[in-house]
Amino acid sequence: MPDCIFCKIAEKQIPAKIAYEDKDLVAFHDINPQAPVHIQIIPKKHIARVSELTPETAPVVSQLVLAANRLADRLGIAEPGYRLVINCNPGAGQSVYHLHLHLLGGRAMKWPPG
Amino acid sequence: MPDCIFCKIAEKQIPAKIAYEDKDLVAFHDINPQAPVHIQIIPKKHIARVSELTPETAPVVSQLVLAANRLADRLGIAEPGYRLVINCNPGAGQSVYHLHLHLLGGRAMKWPPG
Repeated sequence: MPDCIFCKIAEKQIPAKIAYEDKDLVAFHDINPQAPVHIQIIPKKHIARVSELTPETAPVVSQLVLAANRLADRLGIAEPGYRLVINCNPGAGQSVYHLHLHLLGGRAMKWPPG
Repeated sequence: MPDCIFCKIAEKQIPAKIAYEDKDLVAFHDINPQAPVHIQIIPKKHIARVSELTPETAPVVSQLVLAANRLADRLGIAEPGYRLVINCNPGAGQSVYHLHLHLLGGRAMKWPPG
């Protein structure tokens, strides 16, 4: 998608602090972190929002979560704990319309979750 | 798991306000809701936490998310927006050690997410 900032990060047209990459996914540090560790994990393929997933495309969510687990482990936040968040649409605070999973940790997370 | 409260809900040994059920999943309204709509979606099979998922068991996460999308649609919160949350371990506020996806909506969700 030509105007999608996350597509541009995936294609290295916009710089980001990359935390992980494979053929399907990219993970990068949030530029406005809400916790000591705050990483966005995205599919390289453009999907605007989680609600658009179909049974055919939904397996990418499992890939995002497995990548988050590995990152949490590597960054030392797995044991105290981490939170995974996906926002869908403006009422939830989705600001970039390219599916992304937030990985947050390194501090105690409060309840309610926003 | 004999002492798992969510296994007992899945097996109907403990009552819950069921919002959705299929052969693999159960969704029920949170007894301490943090938003007008607050539903827990769980696999029937006991998995203690998201960090324990393997490439073999991870597809259940996609099923949880697809079920959340359908529920959001049915409950009228898809369009304003909804948030999906998974907590892993005490630092993130995980209180029941049976994997569950929180679906929250029906109000504006704030940032940070807890």
